[in-house]
Amino acid sequence: MPNINLDRPLLSALEGLTQLGSASRYEDEIFGIIDHILLFEDLARAEISQLCTKMECFCAKRGDVIMRENDDGDFLGIILTGEVAVVKENCNGEAKQLAIVGPGASLGEMSLINGKPRFATCVAKEPTDIAVLTRDTIYDILVLHPSLGNKVLLILLQITSQRLRETSSRLLPFIGTAAV
Amino acid sequence: MPNINLDRPLLSALEGLTQLGSASRYEDEIFGIIDHILLFEDLARAEISQLCTKMECFCAKRGDVIMRENDDGDFLGIILTGEVAVVKENCNGEAKQLAIVGPGASLGEMSLINGKPRFATCVAKEPTDIAVLTRDTIYDILVLHPSLGNKVLLILLQITSQRLRETSSRLLPFIGTAAV
Repeated sequence: MPNINLDRPLLSALEGLTQLGSASRYEDEIFGIIDHILLFEDLARAEISQLCTKMECFCAKRGDVIMRENDDGDFLGIILTGEVAVVKENCNGEAKQLAIVGPGASLGEMSLINGKPRFATCVAKEPTDIAVLTRDTIYDILVLHPSLGNKVLLILLQITSQRLRETSSRLLPFIGTAAV
Repeated sequence: MPNINLDRPLLSALEGLTQLGSASRYEDEIFGIIDHILLFEDLARAEISQLCTKMECFCAKRGDVIMRENDDGDFLGIILTGEVAVVKENCNGEAKQLAIVGPGASLGEMSLINGKPRFATCVAKEPTDIAVLTRDTIYDILVLHPSLGNKVLLILLQITSQRLRETSSRLLPFIGTAAV
Protein backbone atom coordinates (compact mmCIF):
# COMPACT_ATOMS: atom_id res chain seq x y z
CA MET A 1 0.00 0.00 0.00
CA PRO A 2 1.60 3.30 -1.05
CA ASN A 3 2.58 5.89 1.51
CA ILE A 4 1.80 9.57 1.08
CA ASN A 5 4.05 11.10 -1.52
CA LEU A 6 4.71 14.62 -0.33
CA ASP A 7 6.48 15.49 -3.56
CA ARG A 8 3.11 15.60 -5.32
CA PRO A 9 1.54 19.00 -5.93
CA LEU A 10 -1.54 17.68 -4.09
CA LEU A 11 -0.38 19.04 -0.77
CA SER A 12 0.98 22.37 -1.97
CA ALA A 13 -1.42 24.08 0.43
CA LEU A 14 0.63 22.67 3.30
CA GLU A 15 3.96 23.93 1.96
CA GLY A 16 4.05 26.85 4.37
CA LEU A 17 3.74 24.58 7.41
CA THR A 18 6.51 22.73 9.23
CA GLN A 19 6.59 19.04 8.36
CA LEU A 20 6.81 16.80 11.42
CA GLY A 21 7.00 13.38 9.70
CA SER A 22 4.82 10.28 9.78
CA ALA A 23 1.93 10.18 12.26
CA SER A 24 3.33 6.84 13.44
CA ARG A 25 5.97 8.84 15.34
CA TYR A 26 3.17 10.53 17.28
CA GLU A 27 1.08 7.43 17.78
CA ASP A 28 1.36 7.57 21.57
CA GLU A 29 0.29 11.22 21.63
CA ILE A 30 -2.59 10.37 19.29
CA PHE A 31 -3.71 7.60 21.64
CA GLY A 32 -3.47 10.13 24.46
CA ILE A 33 -6.22 12.28 22.92
CA ILE A 34 -8.04 9.42 21.22
CA ASP A 35 -11.30 10.07 23.07
CA HIS A 36 -11.55 13.42 21.30
CA ILE A 37 -10.77 12.18 17.80
CA LEU A 38 -14.16 11.47 16.26
CA LEU A 39 -12.56 10.04 13.13
CA PHE A 40 -10.94 7.28 15.18
CA GLU A 41 -14.07 6.42 17.13
CA ASP A 42 -14.95 2.74 16.82
CA LEU A 43 -11.58 1.84 15.29
CA ALA A 44 -9.46 -0.85 16.92
CA ARG A 45 -5.96 0.12 18.06
CA ALA A 46 -4.43 -1.93 15.21
CA GLU A 47 -6.60 -0.07 12.69
CA ILE A 48 -5.54 3.29 14.10
CA SER A 49 -1.88 2.25 13.92
CA GLN A 50 -2.49 1.26 10.29
CA LEU A 51 -4.02 4.67 9.55
CA CYS A 52 -1.13 6.43 11.33
CA THR A 53 1.34 4.87 8.88
CA LYS A 54 -0.62 6.60 6.09
CA MET A 55 -0.75 10.04 7.70
CA GLU A 56 1.81 12.83 7.85
CA CYS A 57 1.94 15.47 10.61
CA PHE A 58 2.44 19.23 10.24
CA CYS A 59 2.81 22.15 12.61
CA ALA A 60 1.11 25.49 11.89
CA LYS A 61 2.17 28.73 13.60
CA ARG A 62 -0.37 31.17 14.97
CA GLY A 63 -2.01 32.85 11.95
CA ASP A 64 -0.95 30.18 9.42
CA VAL A 65 -3.60 29.21 6.89
CA ILE A 66 -4.09 25.44 6.98
CA MET A 67 -6.76 25.37 4.26
CA ARG A 68 -7.92 28.23 2.08
CA GLU A 69 -11.47 28.80 0.78
CA ASN A 70 -11.84 27.81 -2.91
CA ASP A 71 -8.58 25.81 -3.01
CA ASP A 72 -8.72 22.21 -4.19
CA GLY A 73 -9.64 20.00 -1.24
CA ASP A 74 -7.32 17.06 -1.47
CA PHE A 75 -6.72 16.26 2.20
CA LEU A 76 -8.38 16.30 5.59
CA GLY A 77 -6.60 17.29 8.78
CA ILE A 78 -7.11 16.05 12.32
CA ILE A 79 -6.16 18.60 14.98
CA LEU A 80 -3.78 17.03 17.50
CA THR A 81 -2.99 20.15 19.56
CA GLY A 82 -3.95 23.81 19.24
CA GLU A 83 -6.99 25.73 18.06
CA VAL A 84 -8.29 26.60 14.59
CA ALA A 85 -10.76 29.24 13.38
CA VAL A 86 -13.02 28.26 10.49
CA VAL A 87 -13.92 31.41 8.56
CA LYS A 88 -15.70 32.17 5.30
CA GLU A 89 -16.03 35.37 3.31
CA ASN A 90 -19.52 36.68 2.60
CA CYS A 91 -20.43 38.46 -0.64
CA ASN A 92 -19.08 41.75 0.80
CA GLY A 93 -15.67 40.20 1.45
CA GLU A 94 -16.18 40.17 5.23
CA ALA A 95 -14.75 37.11 7.06
CA LYS A 96 -17.48 35.34 9.02
CA GLN A 97 -16.39 32.93 11.75
CA LEU A 98 -18.25 29.63 11.34
CA ALA A 99 -16.56 27.81 14.22
CA ILE A 100 -13.57 27.47 16.52
CA VAL A 101 -12.33 23.90 16.82
CA GLY A 102 -9.70 22.13 18.89
CA PRO A 103 -7.94 18.79 19.42
CA GLY A 104 -9.72 15.81 17.88
CA ALA A 105 -11.73 17.84 15.38
CA SER A 106 -11.37 17.09 11.69
CA LEU A 107 -11.03 19.78 9.03
CA GLY A 108 -11.72 19.65 5.32
CA GLU A 109 -13.55 16.35 5.01
CA MET A 110 -16.35 17.94 2.94
CA SER A 111 -14.14 18.82 -0.03
CA LEU A 112 -12.16 15.63 0.32
CA ILE A 113 -15.28 13.64 -0.37
CA ASN A 114 -17.27 15.69 -2.83
CA GLY A 115 -14.31 16.98 -4.84
CA LYS A 116 -15.52 20.58 -4.63
CA PRO A 117 -13.31 23.55 -3.69
CA ARG A 118 -12.79 24.30 0.00
CA PHE A 119 -15.92 25.83 1.51
CA ALA A 120 -14.06 27.82 4.17
CA THR A 121 -10.60 28.90 5.34
CA CYS A 122 -8.96 27.32 8.42
CA VAL A 123 -6.52 29.54 10.33
CA ALA A 124 -4.41 28.45 13.32
CA LYS A 125 -5.31 30.64 16.31
CA GLU A 126 -2.36 29.22 18.25
CA PRO A 127 0.48 26.81 17.40
CA THR A 128 -1.38 23.80 16.02
CA ASP A 129 -0.29 20.29 15.07
CA ILE A 130 -2.38 18.39 12.54
CA ALA A 131 -2.28 14.86 11.12
CA VAL A 132 -3.08 14.81 7.41
CA LEU A 133 -4.96 12.13 5.45
CA THR A 134 -4.98 12.67 1.68
CA ARG A 135 -7.77 11.81 -0.75
CA ASP A 136 -5.43 9.38 -2.54
CA THR A 137 -4.74 7.57 0.72
CA ILE A 138 -8.44 7.24 1.50
CA TYR A 139 -9.11 5.82 -1.95
CA ASP A 140 -6.20 3.40 -1.51
CA ILE A 141 -7.72 2.24 1.77
CA LEU A 142 -11.13 1.79 0.12
CA VAL A 143 -9.65 -0.38 -2.63
CA LEU A 144 -7.15 -2.38 -0.60
CA HIS A 145 -8.86 -2.54 2.80
CA PRO A 146 -12.60 -2.10 2.08
CA SER A 147 -13.70 -3.09 5.60
CA LEU A 148 -11.43 -0.48 7.23
CA GLY A 149 -12.56 1.91 4.47
CA ASN A 150 -16.18 1.32 5.42
CA LYS A 151 -15.44 2.19 9.04
CA VAL A 152 -13.64 5.40 8.09
CA LEU A 153 -16.49 6.42 5.76
CA LEU A 154 -19.14 5.60 8.37
CA ILE A 155 -17.38 7.83 10.89
CA LEU A 156 -16.97 10.63 8.34
CA LEU A 157 -20.71 10.30 7.65
CA GLN A 158 -21.47 10.55 11.35
CA ILE A 159 -19.30 13.66 11.70
CA THR A 160 -20.86 15.30 8.63
CA SER A 161 -24.41 14.36 9.68
CA GLN A 162 -23.83 15.82 13.13
CA ARG A 163 -22.54 19.09 11.61
CA LEU A 164 -25.54 19.24 9.26
CA ARG A 165 -27.84 18.72 12.25
CA GLU A 166 -26.15 21.50 14.23
CA THR A 167 -26.04 23.89 11.26
CA SER A 168 -29.70 23.23 10.43
CA SER A 169 -30.64 23.90 14.06
CA ARG A 170 -28.76 27.21 13.96
CA LEU A 171 -30.59 28.13 10.73
CA LEU A 172 -34.04 27.24 12.06
CA PRO A 173 -34.87 30.61 13.70
CA PHE A 174 -34.30 32.34 10.36
CA ILE A 175 -36.68 30.19 8.29
CA GLY A 176 -40.32 31.06 7.57
CA THR A 177 -43.18 29.05 9.06
CA ALA A 178 -44.40 26.14 6.91
CA ALA A 179 -47.88 25.99 5.43
CA VAL A 180 -48.33 22.22 5.68
CA MET B 1 -28.05 -12.09 2.19
CA PRO B 2 -31.27 -11.49 4.14
CA ASN B 3 -34.13 -9.56 2.63
CA ILE B 4 -35.98 -6.85 4.52
CA ASN B 5 -38.22 -8.36 7.15
CA LEU B 6 -41.25 -6.13 7.30
CA ASP B 7 -42.60 -7.92 10.37
CA ARG B 8 -39.94 -6.23 12.49
CA PRO B 9 -40.96 -3.22 14.57
CA LEU B 10 -38.18 -1.27 12.84
CA LEU B 11 -40.48 -0.05 10.11
CA SER B 12 -43.51 0.72 12.23
CA ALA B 13 -43.33 4.32 11.00
CA LEU B 14 -44.29 3.07 7.55
CA GLU B 15 -47.32 1.13 8.74
CA GLY B 16 -49.74 3.82 7.60
CA LEU B 17 -48.44 3.70 4.03
CA THR B 18 -49.48 1.32 1.24
CA GLN B 19 -46.92 -1.40 0.65
CA LEU B 20 -46.03 -1.84 -3.03
CA GLY B 21 -43.57 -4.75 -2.74
CA SER B 22 -39.92 -5.21 -3.65
CA ALA B 23 -38.16 -2.41 -5.51
CA SER B 24 -37.08 -5.03 -8.05
CA ARG B 25 -40.62 -4.86 -9.44
CA TYR B 26 -40.07 -1.17 -10.16
CA GLU B 27 -36.53 -1.53 -11.44
CA ASP B 28 -37.40 -0.23 -14.92
CA GLU B 29 -39.11 2.84 -13.45
CA ILE B 30 -36.13 3.38 -11.17
CA PHE B 31 -33.80 3.25 -14.18
CA GLY B 32 -36.10 5.75 -15.87
CA ILE B 33 -35.36 8.39 -13.23
CA ILE B 34 -31.85 7.19 -12.45
CA ASP B 35 -30.23 10.49 -13.40
CA HIS B 36 -32.06 12.14 -10.51
CA ILE B 37 -31.23 9.51 -7.87
CA LEU B 38 -28.08 10.80 -6.21
CA LEU B 39 -27.78 7.66 -4.11
CA PHE B 40 -27.39 5.57 -7.27
CA GLU B 41 -24.83 7.88 -8.87
CA ASP B 42 -21.67 6.01 -9.83
CA LEU B 43 -23.25 2.59 -9.27
CA ALA B 44 -23.20 0.05 -12.10
CA ARG B 45 -26.57 -1.30 -13.33
CA ALA B 46 -25.83 -4.68 -11.72
CA GLU B 47 -25.14 -2.97 -8.38
CA ILE B 48 -28.41 -1.03 -8.58
CA SER B 49 -30.29 -4.24 -9.37
CA GLN B 50 -28.64 -5.80 -6.33
CA LEU B 51 -29.72 -2.87 -4.15
CA CYS B 52 -33.26 -3.05 -5.57
CA THR B 53 -33.61 -6.62 -4.30
CA LYS B 54 -32.94 -5.23 -0.79
CA MET B 55 -35.43 -2.37 -0.96
CA GLU B 56 -39.19 -2.27 -0.46
CA CYS B 57 -41.50 0.33 -2.03
CA PHE B 58 -44.33 2.24 -0.36
CA CYS B 59 -46.96 4.73 -1.50
CA ALA B 60 -47.86 7.74 0.67
CA LYS B 61 -51.09 9.69 0.13
CA ARG B 62 -51.11 13.48 0.18
CA GLY B 63 -50.60 14.53 3.81
CA ASP B 64 -49.18 11.18 4.97
CA VAL B 65 -46.22 11.43 7.34
CA ILE B 66 -43.33 9.39 5.91
CA MET B 67 -40.96 10.16 8.79
CA ARG B 68 -41.71 11.95 12.04
CA GLU B 69 -39.34 14.23 13.97
CA ASN B 70 -37.84 12.49 17.04
CA ASP B 71 -38.81 9.00 15.87
CA ASP B 72 -36.11 6.36 15.65
CA GLY B 73 -34.40 6.67 12.27
CA ASP B 74 -34.04 3.15 11.03
CA PHE B 75 -34.48 3.59 7.28
CA LEU B 76 -33.85 5.99 4.45
CA GLY B 77 -36.30 6.59 1.63
CA ILE B 78 -35.64 7.47 -2.01
CA ILE B 79 -38.48 9.44 -3.63
CA LEU B 80 -39.52 7.76 -6.89
CA THR B 81 -42.51 9.97 -7.74
CA GLY B 82 -44.25 12.82 -5.93
CA GLU B 83 -43.18 15.65 -3.66
CA VAL B 84 -42.29 15.80 0.03
CA ALA B 85 -42.10 18.72 2.49
CA VAL B 86 -39.35 18.54 5.12
CA VAL B 87 -40.54 20.43 8.22
CA LYS B 88 -39.28 20.92 11.76
CA GLU B 89 -40.88 22.43 14.82
CA ASN B 90 -39.16 25.37 16.49
CA CYS B 91 -39.20 25.90 20.25
CA ASN B 92 -42.63 27.62 19.97
CA GLY B 93 -44.14 24.57 18.27
CA GLU B 94 -44.33 26.30 14.88
CA ALA B 95 -43.58 24.08 11.85
CA LYS B 96 -40.71 25.53 9.79
CA GLN B 97 -40.30 24.27 6.23
CA LEU B 98 -36.66 23.29 5.67
CA ALA B 99 -37.08 22.06 2.09
CA ILE B 100 -39.38 20.66 -0.59
CA VAL B 101 -37.90 17.65 -2.38
CA GLY B 102 -38.91 15.53 -5.36
CA PRO B 103 -38.00 12.40 -7.36
CA GLY B 104 -34.46 11.15 -6.78
CA ALA B 105 -34.00 12.87 -3.42
CA SER B 106 -33.20 10.77 -0.39
CA LEU B 107 -34.84 11.26 2.99
CA GLY B 108 -33.66 10.27 6.43
CA GLU B 109 -30.06 9.30 5.79
CA MET B 110 -28.82 11.45 8.71
CA SER B 111 -30.55 9.41 11.41
CA LEU B 112 -29.86 6.16 9.60
CA ILE B 113 -26.15 6.75 9.96
CA ASN B 114 -25.74 8.51 13.29
CA GLY B 115 -28.43 6.56 15.14
CA LYS B 116 -30.03 9.75 16.50
CA PRO B 117 -33.77 10.48 16.40
CA ARG B 118 -35.23 11.97 13.22
CA PHE B 119 -34.24 15.62 12.88
CA ALA B 120 -37.34 16.62 10.89
CA THR B 121 -40.74 15.41 9.70
CA CYS B 122 -41.33 14.43 6.06
CA VAL B 123 -44.88 14.89 4.75
CA ALA B 124 -46.13 13.89 1.29
CA LYS B 125 -47.43 17.00 -0.49
CA GLU B 126 -48.90 14.81 -3.25
CA PRO B 127 -49.19 11.03 -3.80
CA THR B 128 -45.59 9.88 -3.36
CA ASP B 129 -43.85 6.56 -3.99
CA ILE B 130 -40.67 5.83 -2.05
CA ALA B 131 -38.13 2.99 -2.08
CA VAL B 132 -36.93 2.12 1.42
CA LEU B 133 -33.46 0.97 2.49
CA THR B 134 -33.23 -0.07 6.15
CA ARG B 135 -30.27 0.36 8.48
CA ASP B 136 -30.05 -3.43 8.86
CA THR B 137 -29.81 -3.84 5.10
CA ILE B 138 -27.04 -1.25 4.82
CA TYR B 139 -25.05 -2.97 7.57
CA ASP B 140 -25.58 -6.33 5.83
CA ILE B 141 -24.19 -4.80 2.63
CA LEU B 142 -21.18 -3.38 4.51
CA VAL B 143 -20.37 -6.78 5.98
CA LEU B 144 -21.15 -9.00 3.00
CA HIS B 145 -20.33 -6.69 0.08
CA PRO B 146 -17.82 -4.15 1.46
CA SER B 147 -16.89 -2.74 -1.95
CA LEU B 148 -20.54 -1.99 -2.81
CA GLY B 149 -20.87 -0.70 0.77
CA ASN B 150 -17.99 1.70 0.15
CA LYS B 151 -19.75 3.12 -2.88
CA VAL B 152 -23.07 3.56 -1.07
CA LEU B 153 -21.34 5.27 1.89
CA LEU B 154 -19.29 7.54 -0.41
CA ILE B 155 -22.46 8.67 -2.17
CA LEU B 156 -24.26 9.22 1.16
CA LEU B 157 -21.25 11.31 2.24
CA GLN B 158 -21.45 13.36 -0.94
CA ILE B 159 -25.17 13.97 -0.44
CA THR B 160 -24.67 14.94 3.23
CA SER B 161 -21.64 17.16 2.47
CA GLN B 162 -23.59 18.98 -0.25
CA ARG B 163 -26.49 19.58 2.16
CA LEU B 164 -24.07 20.85 4.83
CA ARG B 165 -22.52 23.20 2.27
CA GLU B 166 -25.94 24.54 1.23
CA THR B 167 -27.17 24.88 4.81
CA SER B 168 -23.96 26.65 5.90
CA SER B 169 -24.30 29.06 2.97
CA ARG B 170 -27.89 29.84 4.00
CA LEU B 171 -26.69 30.46 7.57
CA LEU B 172 -23.79 32.73 6.56
CA PRO B 173 -25.73 36.05 6.44
CA PHE B 174 -26.82 35.50 10.06
CA ILE B 175 -23.32 34.98 11.53
CA GLY B 176 -21.18 37.74 13.07
CA THR B 177 -17.98 38.95 11.42
CA ALA B 178 -14.80 37.10 12.47
CA ALA B 179 -12.00 38.84 14.36
CA VAL B 180 -9.14 36.85 12.82
